[in-house]
Order: sequence, then structure tokens, then C-alpha cells
Amino acid sequence: MKRMYALAGAAGLLLLPAIPALAQAGAAPADRDLMWVTWLGSIAALLFALILALSVLRKHPGSATMQELSRAVLEGATAYLKQQYKVVGLFFILLFAVLAVISFGLKLLSPFVPFAFITGGFFSALAGFIGMSIATRANARTAQGASESLNAGLRVAFSSGTVMGMTVVGLGLLDIAIWWFLLRFAFAVPVVEIPPIMITFGMGASLQALFARLGGGIFTKAADVGADLVGKVEANIPEDDARNPATIADNVGDNVGDVAGMGADLYESYVGSIIATMALGAIASLNLPEVSAMQMIQVPVSVATIGVLCSILGTAVVRTKGDASQHVLLKALRNGTWLSTGLIAVLSLVLVLLTAGPSFIGIWGAMIVGLVAGNVIGWFTEYYTSDNYKPTQELAAEAQTGPATLIIQGHALGMVSTLVPVITVVAATLLAFFLSGGGQFPGIGLYGIGLAAVGMLSTLGITLATDAYGPVADNAGGIAEMADMEPHVRERTDALDSLGNTTAATGKGFAIGSAALTALALLAEYRNKIVEALDTVTVSPAFEQFYANIITITRDAAGHVQDAQMSINLMDPKILMGLFIGAVLPFVFASLSMKAVGRAAGDMVKEVRRQFQANPGILEGTVRPDYASCVGISTKGAQREMVVPSILAVVAPIVVGVLFGPFTVIALLAGALATGFVLAIMMANAGGAWDNAKKFVEAGNYGGKGSEAHKAGVIGDTVGDPYKDTSGPSINILLKLMSMVSIVFVTSFLALNNLVVSLFV
Amino acid sequence: MKRMYALAGAAGLLLLPAIPALAQAGAAPADRDLMWVTWLGSIAALLFALILALSVLRKHPGSATMQELSRAVLEGATAYLKQQYKVVGLFFILLFAVLAVISFGLKLLSPFVPFAFITGGFFSALAGFIGMSIATRANARTAQGASESLNAGLRVAFSSGTVMGMTVVGLGLLDIAIWWFLLRFAFAVPVVEIPPIMITFGMGASLQALFARLGGGIFTKAADVGADLVGKVEANIPEDDARNPATIADNVGDNVGDVAGMGADLYESYVGSIIATMALGAIASLNLPEVSAMQMIQVPVSVATIGVLCSILGTAVVRTKGDASQHVLLKALRNGTWLSTGLIAVLSLVLVLLTAGPSFIGIWGAMIVGLVAGNVIGWFTEYYTSDNYKPTQELAAEAQTGPATLIIQGHALGMVSTLVPVITVVAATLLAFFLSGGGQFPGIGLYGIGLAAVGMLSTLGITLATDAYGPVADNAGGIAEMADMEPHVRERTDALDSLGNTTAATGKGFAIGSAALTALALLAEYRNKIVEALDTVTVSPAFEQFYANIITITRDAAGHVQDAQMSINLMDPKILMGLFIGAVLPFVFASLSMKAVGRAAGDMVKEVRRQFQANPGILEGTVRPDYASCVGISTKGAQREMVVPSILAVVAPIVVGVLFGPFTVIALLAGALATGFVLAIMMANAGGAWDNAKKFVEAGNYGGKGSEAHKAGVIGDTVGDPYKDTSGPSINILLKLMSMVSIVFVTSFLALNNLVVSLFV
Repeated sequence: MKRMYALAGAAGLLLLPAIPALAQAGAAPADRDLMWVTWLGSIAALLFALILALSVLRKHPGSATMQELSRAVLEGATAYLKQQYKVVGLFFILLFAVLAVISFGLKLLSPFVPFAFITGGFFSALAGFIGMSIATRANARTAQGASESLNAGLRVAFSSGTVMGMTVVGLGLLDIAIWWFLLRFAFAVPVVEIPPIMITFGMGASLQALFARLGGGIFTKAADVGADLVGKVEANIPEDDARNPATIADNVGDNVGDVAGMGADLYESYVGSIIATMALGAIASLNLPEVSAMQMIQVPVSVATIGVLCSILGTAVVRTKGDASQHVLLKALRNGTWLSTGLIAVLSLVLVLLTAGPSFIGIWGAMIVGLVAGNVIGWFTEYYTSDNYKPTQELAAEAQTGPATLIIQGHALGMVSTLVPVITVVAATLLAFFLSGGGQFPGIGLYGIGLAAVGMLSTLGITLATDAYGPVADNAGGIAEMADMEPHVRERTDALDSLGNTTAATGKGFAIGSAALTALALLAEYRNKIVEALDTVTVSPAFEQFYANIITITRDAAGHVQDAQMSINLMDPKILMGLFIGAVLPFVFASLSMKAVGRAAGDMVKEVRRQFQANPGILEGTVRPDYASCVGISTKGAQREMVVPSILAVVAPIVVGVLFGPFTVIALLAGALATGFVLAIMMANAGGAWDNAKKFVEAGNYGGKGSEAHKAGVIGDTVGDPYKDTSGPSINILLKLMSMVSIVFVTSFLALNNLVVSLFV
Repeated sequence: MKRMYALAGAAGLLLLPAIPALAQAGAAPADRDLMWVTWLGSIAALLFALILALSVLRKHPGSATMQELSRAVLEGATAYLKQQYKVVGLFFILLFAVLAVISFGLKLLSPFVPFAFITGGFFSALAGFIGMSIATRANARTAQGASESLNAGLRVAFSSGTVMGMTVVGLGLLDIAIWWFLLRFAFAVPVVEIPPIMITFGMGASLQALFARLGGGIFTKAADVGADLVGKVEANIPEDDARNPATIADNVGDNVGDVAGMGADLYESYVGSIIATMALGAIASLNLPEVSAMQMIQVPVSVATIGVLCSILGTAVVRTKGDASQHVLLKALRNGTWLSTGLIAVLSLVLVLLTAGPSFIGIWGAMIVGLVAGNVIGWFTEYYTSDNYKPTQELAAEAQTGPATLIIQGHALGMVSTLVPVITVVAATLLAFFLSGGGQFPGIGLYGIGLAAVGMLSTLGITLATDAYGPVADNAGGIAEMADMEPHVRERTDALDSLGNTTAATGKGFAIGSAALTALALLAEYRNKIVEALDTVTVSPAFEQFYANIITITRDAAGHVQDAQMSINLMDPKILMGLFIGAVLPFVFASLSMKAVGRAAGDMVKEVRRQFQANPGILEGTVRPDYASCVGISTKGAQREMVVPSILAVVAPIVVGVLFGPFTVIALLAGALATGFVLAIMMANAGGAWDNAKKFVEAGNYGGKGSEAHKAGVIGDTVGDPYKDTSGPSINILLKLMSMVSIVFVTSFLALNNLVVSLFV
């Protein structure tokens, strides 16, 4: 059966590079519109996801108890997501109204912007929802599979992860395809104006993703922390024990946080990188006579489409025979990703040669740089956070001297682990910029930076699959434990989970690296938009004089902006101010999200303790704990707490833009990016290392389970929970969201700051 | 007796503003050299310190046991410092040799540079050493005083703190005075060239301070963590119990870390702010026909001198009658600092009017901005870290749900507490810049930023006194405990210690705020030095072309650089690269220093456990533990661990400067400043809040001493120890040191990068 997909995929692959060649016969290369391949990529991904989803649902759903548990998790997750979408929906309606006023009332934005914004949010939510739906149905089936063999368990879990991966890329390409064809053919919008409108749906996707990551992250970590601290540490019962009142909430959390949150997050990353690059390509083409906007715009989507087909082929080789060892399974997973990576590297060269032409071979180089950089960051993430390597092993040894030294060292590990990713991104940025020709034309260099991000995410279909199956395996373990299945089932799901941790590290590397590159591309796009906005908004002479040492505007006879030389000089106090404020924002944001987790977790700890005290029968196993009240506490906490940090992300650039002008915002974004990137890596890696250090102790080192070292390890893991699963990943979204908000509101910044400057200076 | 000093001080004050008026009769205002007032300030401070030191030594040294314990601490501290100075000495010899080669061999630096470098290091070390010497002699005397009354204890502790404060400012002004008169009169160096040479001794002071903070911080925290974790948590014996083998090391640590380290640190801050401002003033005067370099240069030192006299007057009013309550004592301390602040505000206005003239009244405004900003940051530091306010009280409540939630919330608190200081510094920077006239002439605006830092630190004599007496009181408590004094003595020293924590918060605000402003001033000075360096080093056409969009050089007929327009454009990939690398450095640095503490503390934990196990008599109180082995472990740990982070600070800007050019270094410094500033505040405040949250629990809340909440509190405090006393304060030094290294090596960057560009581009 699998082999059939593989063949279908291979056929598609062989076909694709031939398309431009075939179409060559038609229109002139510059006018050829190859955007229809986006439909191809989208449909292929969604179809593959559907077929796999059906195959997962055909698997044995396990015993009645397992099905009941699985249903409880599904119901909790669905109820939570519904509640979350209500709150998010209110936000979207509010922002839609604001955007509508700016578009239709003030005429400062394209009339399509408010609608594009809504669709981005919708598809991001949908990607998360579908991922959650399949994951909650795959958990009991994975446990059932694991009762047969490790390999059978892996197949179910990995298939459901692949459904999520393919859904994310499929819906991403679908949204792009819909808007492209609507704008170009139904509304006849000029080609170069389409990508900037699309950035608005990127903003919608980012905002929804931020809510999903924050809300889901707060939910899952409140439940996790509450369950661990009282259940494991105080009451000494195992993880996922049915006697723990927070255990269902914990499993629901995995699905709404690690699955739905991650789906929305990566949808946002994927779409963001593609549309930012399209926009930069459109602008770059204006200064490059030898290439058309059309040619530049279609490269990222074509690469993404080929990436879908490479990912399908890659998933097909993830298979082993019989009850393979963990090592063999890892090799199978790796083979899949390597195959996809190798294929995309070769095929994108063919594509670039056939579409943009041999003189643009440099932009292919930029993509390869992105692919390599993603792997380098992923590898170092694994090195720093896997207990197969020295850093986490040494960290685990610190658990012997108690939680304090473990936490100090974990922080130190997280901090030092930022060095290689930062240097890698810096090197990738420079290489992508110069390889694609930025030395001569900065515009195409920036396009190259965007393409590096697109390259990095081109195989997201499969890298996300290797990432997303982890929570399914984790949940399967929970069900095995709660349903009192044989110990070897739990051992197998633990093995799958641990394997998932390893592959997730690579996935995180891609997510982090692409976030930095995409944010850089968006920063460049924001800079471009300022120049454009100067043509829309007529600024006063006082404004021009106030910013004279930052911007020099050249106008034609009709008063239109012909050119604007902009120098965001770091030594200008206004710019330095923006840099400082930008630098502090990720810290404030992380603080708000951690406080949120802490508060919600505190409530959970109290509730679990209350239940244990009020009803001693729970710990004896004779009375069923009240699972629903714990789910309710997490839900309430998440809804209450996710709002303020999200508002910060939207409001901060707007306030600075209006009061201190659009140029200071560049420094704000750069400062936030520099600090936020480092902080996000630190939090993700410290959290990952604590998690695996605990597992290393549990594996029998330094006294093993139940020892003092283990207790310290659990505390370290708990501290790391909000770091790695709430604050850290949310910062990545924050950085892009702030850039997109700035891009969308740039005309408003200019108009209002013009007023401010005229009034006060 | 005290009243006599007060009168003498008042007389000096009245005299000083009259001096310029008196001298007016002589030379033209532009040529008048008022730098001799530096001697006045220096001698007044040192004399006052000497008189106070003698008065402290005349106090009753306590019982034989107390004297013995005090001697043990003194011996340990002296032995440690000797060892440290050996290691630091080697470094200084090495760097002296490098500087000598660049000066005498390559002629790229003034021949005075290597020598100035050495004196800065020497005086910084001396300030720390004198502070430690008096503190270790005041500890038993404070305990003895506290046995009489709270007030008597305060007098001794505060006097010894004042000795330290006055020594730091006295030695700072002395170094400036010596070099000024040497260079100007013995070597006839032109006035404008003197301040840049002085920056070299700032670099020496910073490097020594970094070693002192790191080495001392590692020593004290290793001992503290070791003593707390095994003694308090595991063996359940009180703090400073004589049965704890690490207790003497802990007390030695207070003196080498919190006293000697802080002394060296603030010597560096004080001198750094003054000489950076002098240098900026000299450059600013070149574009201002109405004022001479001499006039600009003497403002900061004159303000500092008046500040000395205001501080002396301020310390005189710190007195209460009989056994006053803690509240009254705090009021007395506050009265002292407020009096000094008020006096300096008024007197510096007179000074500016009489020296620079009424048209420069704006630079007085800049100074006041600095004073106010220091107080605002100090107040918010207190708000976030004192258990009199909600944030720390709420944090303490988290201890009830265990160490994990306490640590998550403490981090969140530290992160959010960065917002106000950053906004304050941003506002102060802009205000100082524009008030002093930066809108018209950026040069004088930068000078204004420097003056804001000088204003903030002008009353360092007294603010440092209120900061430095805390460790003395802490040590006194240790001696009271170890010498089995009456419980009320310990209660009183605890009250003093807690008072010290409150006033130290304000001191920290000044240290952090001034570090940011000084670093900004140094950044501006570095930019100036690049232009100067372009005249010294002849760059190739390839170099000029490579950096064409960053710098435009205008040369006269003889090929000399007439002017250089420099724009450090954030959108240039090279500049962005510098920003990113800069942003990651404070994280790596903090990681290295925390790892160092963790490793040394881990050794200490093992040693204390070993002693308890090997000899059960220790815990029974029948056998004396081996104190010396613990002191030895801390000493070895500190020496071993302080080297690598220090090298990073010196090497990072040099490597980037040589490979990627002097312009990228500006972005590196700005990125490091933006991130490092935020990180330093976060670490300092989180650490302070954990410390006081623990004390809040110990005061009887949430179960009080011995409860589970208390155990969690101790763990939080332990995690915070390296944050607030090692990594946090070291980052402040790091930021300035990197700037100074860049300034000193700028000609080398240019010469070598010119070579690199010619070879590879």
C-alpha cells in the first residue's frame, strides 16, 4: 500500500521540473504564471494526509477502557479548543474592525487586508484542530499497536504525525493559492501588489498561532506541573497514574499544547517564510531588468510544492521490519528526512535553472544554505539536550547535589547553547545574502535570506511528522498506564517517546532557525514598506526635517516618492532607544507567559492536594478522582492568562511606531529579534536538557527513580516545562508577529507619527 | 567628633564654587585649568576614610573567640586575594606586553597607554583590598557594638562601609589627578589628547574589576551554596553554625566577593564614567567655538569633587539616638543620601554656571537627569526585591507549592522587572542628549549622556557606604552565631543585614543605571576613535570601497582625514551580524560564570557532606570541622574558573574587529549592551527577590523556618546567589570592558582588518 504512494510521489516529482520546460513553449518566461503549481502541492499534501488519516482510523482502537480514556482526552481537548477559539474569535473580530476602518475609512490599506487577515487565522486554527483530532484518535491506537510490536506502534504514531505535517503544509499552500487566484484573476490586482496583501494573512496566522501556543502551552504546563509536583514528588505515584486527578488534564494538554499549538505555530512559520520571500522577490525584481516579478514570486511556492512531494517520498521510506530496536527506528526516521533533504536539494536546482534562469543559480545556493543551517542548528540542539551527549549527562550529575545546582547548571547550559545557533544564523544570513547577489543588489540579497528560510522549511511535511508523533506516543503511554496495560507496552511507548524527543530536537532547530531568518526577511520587507508608505501618506516638512539624518526622500515633479535613501544609524539616539525597548520586550513577554503558567500551575497543585486530602480513597485506588475539575482549572487558567501577552505583541510596535516613528520601529524589531532569538533558544534548550537529565536519572543513573537525584530532576524538569513548551516557542512567533503588525500598520504609523511630530517638535 | 567633620566638609563646600570665581581674575576662562580640584576631592575623601578607619579600629574588638574568628576570616580573605592578584598580575603583564608592542613597536598607540593600563588595575585592586581590610576588622567590632545597641552596631558597620566608599572615590580621583598632571605638565601632552589615554587606565580598572567580581563571586557563592545546601537543608543546622565546615569560607567569601569585588567594581564604574565623559567633552569642544576643551574636561571631575564633599556631609547626618528601631535607622540612612543628593544638585548648578557658563545650563540638566534616573531605578529595584512590597511577597507565597513554582515565578519577576529600568535609561539618555544640546550638536549631546552617568555616581561616597555596610553586618551576624553570643545580638545584626539589603537595592540601581549610560558614552567615544584612527592608519582603496555604504571619508590635500561621515546602518548585513553576535555574548558570559559557580559549589557540597559523614562528631558539636579545606576549595575553584570568561571579554571584540572591521564592532557593542543590560537587571533582581522571599518565609510566613516552604525558599535563594552576586554584576563590567578594549585597540582593528579586506575581498 505504502509503496503505491511512494510511486505516485516519485511520478509527481519527475513531472514537476518538466513543467516549466513544457510551458516554455507558451508565454515569454517573464510572464509565465506558474503559481498554479501551488494547487498541486496543496492538493497532494492534503490528499496524502487524508489517505493516511483514514489508514490510522482503520487501526484497532484498543480495549473498551482505552477507548473510553481516549474519548475523555478527545472531549477535553475539543471542549478546550472550542473555548479558545471563542476568545480568539473576539480578538479577530476586534482587529478586523480596526483594519476595516483603516482600509475603508482612512483608505490607508488595501481593501483585501481585513479579509486576508481573517483567513490566515482561520487556516492556522484549522491546521491545529485537524492535528489535534487525529492525534487524540491515534493515541489509543498507538498503545494498541505497541502491544503488538514497537514497529507497529511507531507506524500509527508516525502516520498521525505525518497527517499533521501534511495538513500544515497543505493548508498553507491552499491559503496562498486561493488568495493568489482571487486577487490576480477575480480582482485583477497587479502581480507585485499581491504578496504584501498576503502578509496580512501571515499576520492573522501568527496572531492565532501565538494564542494557540500560549493558551495551549499554559494549559498543558499547568496540568503537567500540577500532576508532577503533587503526584510524582509528594505522593510518590508514577507518571500518568489513574489515581492522579490531573492526569487526564495532562494528556489533554499534550494535545492542545504540543499538537494543536505546534500545528498552528508551524503553519505560521511555513506561510510566513513563503509570503515574506514572495514580497521581497517582487520588490527585488523592480531593480533587476533581467527578471520579472512573476519569476521571483513563483520560486518560493514552487520550492514548497516540490518539498511536499519530497516529503511524501521521504515518509514512504520510514519503515522497518518486525520488532526493530530503537536504534534501527531512529535510523529509519533519519533516512526519511535525509532522502527528502537530498531530493529537494537536487530538484530545486533544476527548478531554479528552468524558472529564474542560470544567472540566478545563487538563489539556489541561498536555499541550500538554509537547509544546511537548519540541520546544523538541529544537530546542536540535539547535542545540548539529548542524554546521549555530555552536556545533558553532566547536567544530570548535578542532580546529585540537589535541585539548586541542577537549576543553575541547566540555565548555564541553555545560555551557552545559544552560541552555535546564533553564529549559524549569522553565517547563513551573510552567505544567503552574498551568494544570491546582495553584494551588487541588496534587494536580491534580502530575497536570498528569505529563500534560506523557505529552503529550511521546504521539507516541513516530514520534519514536522518526526516532531509531531512524539506527543502521540507520550499520550499512548498515558493510556497504557491508565488502562493498566502490560508493562512492556509502556516500555515501548516510552521508547517511542524518547525517540520523539531526539527527532523533535531537530524539528526545533528548523523552527528556531527559520523564525530568525523569516523575521529578518520581514524586517527587510518592513523597511521596503516604509518607502512605499511615504508615497501613500503625505508627510509634513517638519517630519522630513525631524528625520533628515535618517531618511532622504527624492520626489518627482508630481510630488511622488521616486526614491528614499534610508539609514537606520545605530548612533542616532532615537534608533538606540528603539533597540533597547526592542531588547526588553521578549523578556517582558516571557515573564508574562511564565507567570501565567506559574499561576495556573499553582491552582492545579492546590486542587490535586485538595482532592488527595479530602478523599484518601483516591490514593488507595478505590475512588475515582475528579478529572473534570482539573481540566476546568487548566482551561480557565489558559483563557485568562493568554490575553495580556498577546496584546503586548500587537500593541508594542504600534505604540512605538505612532509615538516615535516608523524608523525607530526598525530598531525595535532588530533589538527584539536579537534578544528574543537568543532567549528563545536558551529557554528551549535549558528545558529540553532538564527533561532529558531527569530521564537519564530515571534510566537508573545516580540512584535512579525515587532517589534524591530523581526528585531534583523532577524539579528541574518542572522548571523547564514552561521554558521549552510555552515561553520559548511563543517568542519565535512574537518576533514574526511584531514584524507583520509593523508591516500592516506602517501607513498608520506614518500618518499618526507625522501628526505627532507636527504637533510636538 | 562627627560634627567636626561635618563642619569641615561644609566649609570645603562653601569654598569650592567660589574657586572658579576667584580664579576668574587670572587666565581667560577657556584656558583656566581647574583640574587641581581633583587633588582636593581625592585628598578629602582619602583623609576622611583614614580618620573613620582609625575610629573603627578604636572600637572594642570583642571577646577572644570573636577576635579569633575575625582573624580567621581576615587571614582567609588575605590569602585568597594574594592568590588572586598573582593570577591577575600574570594577565596584566601579558597584556602590558601586547600593548607595549602596539605602542612602541607598531606605533599605533600612545606610549603612555601600557603604563596607564597598569595603574588602573593597581588602583582598582587597592580599592578592593582596603575595603576588605577594614571590613574584616569591623565585623567582630560590629557584633560587639550590636551587643550594646542596634545603633552602636550600625555606627561601626556604616563607618566601615563609608571607609570603603570614600576609598573608592578617593583613589579614583587620585589616579585621574596623577595622570593629568603627569601628562600635561611633565610630558606636555595636549589637553584634548589626555582623556583618551586615560581610558586605558579605565580598561585596566575594568579588567581587574571583572576578575575581582568573578573570582570573588565564584568564591563566595561556592561557599554560600555549599554551606546552605548541606548545612541548612540537609543537616538542618542554622546559618553560620560553627559545626558547618563551610562557614568560615562563607564569611571569607562575603569579604572577597561582596566587599573587595564590589569595591573594585565601583572603582571601575566611577572612573569609567568620569574619563569617558572627559573624552567626549574634549571631542565636543572641537565643534563648539564658544567653549574650550579645558572647560569641558573639568566639569566631570569638578562635579565628582563636589560630590565627595556632599557625601562627607551626608554621612555626618546618619546618626540616631539610643536603641532606635529599624525604621528610624532606615530614615537616618535615607536622610544622609537625600542630603547629599540635594546638595550636589544645587552646587553643581553653581559650578556649571561659573565654569562652562550660562549657555551650558543644559549639561547641568543632564546631570540632574542622571541623579533622578538613578533614584528611579533604585526605587524600582527595591520595589521588586524587597519583601515590603507585593512582588516579593507574592513570590514567597509560591514557596508553598515547592521550589519549582518558586523558581519559575522568580524568573518571571526578574524578567518583568527589567522594563522600568530600561525605559528609565532610555528616557534619561534621550533627555540628557537633547537637554545638553544634542539636537543641534550631537557631540555635546553625547557628552550630556556621559554627564548623566557622572551625576548618577557623584554621591557614590555615600551610596556605596549604604551598600557596603551590609556584608559587614552579615559577617558580624556570622561571628555572633559562631561565638555563641546572646540571641538578641544575632537578631540585631540580622536587622542591620536586612536594612542593608534595602539600601543595597538603591545602590544596585545606581550601579546598573550608570553602567548603561557609561557604556553608551564609551560607545560614542569608540565611534569618535574610529575617525581618529583613520588618520593614523592608512587604509587601502579596497577597504574604503568595501565599507563605502558605511563610511565616507573626506581627505585634505595632504591625504589627512578631514571628516568622516559614518552611518552604522542596521539594515546592512555586516552590522546586523555584529548586533546578533553582540546579543549572544552576555548569555555566553553569564553561562560561563554560572557554570563556574556550579562546579565550585558542587565540590563544596561534596566536601561538606564528606566531613559530616567521615566525622559524626562534627554535627554533635564535639569535633571542630576542617574549615581550611573548604576555604581551599573555594580558592582553587575561583582561580580556575575566572579565567575563561575574562578572556572572552577581551578577545571577542578584538576577533570581530580584526575579522569584520571596526564598524561591525559598534553593532557588537550595541547588541551586547542592549541584551547585557536587560540580562544583568533580570539576574540581579531575580536573585534579590529569592533572597528576600526566603527571609519573608523565615520571618514566620507560610510556615516559617523549617517548613517545606522554607526549604523551597532556601533552594530559590541558592539559585539566585550566582545570579545576583556573580553573573549579574559581572555583566555590567563586561559591557564597559568590551567598549574600552575596542577603544584601545581600534587602530589595531583598522590596520589588521585593512589587511584582511585587501587579502580576501
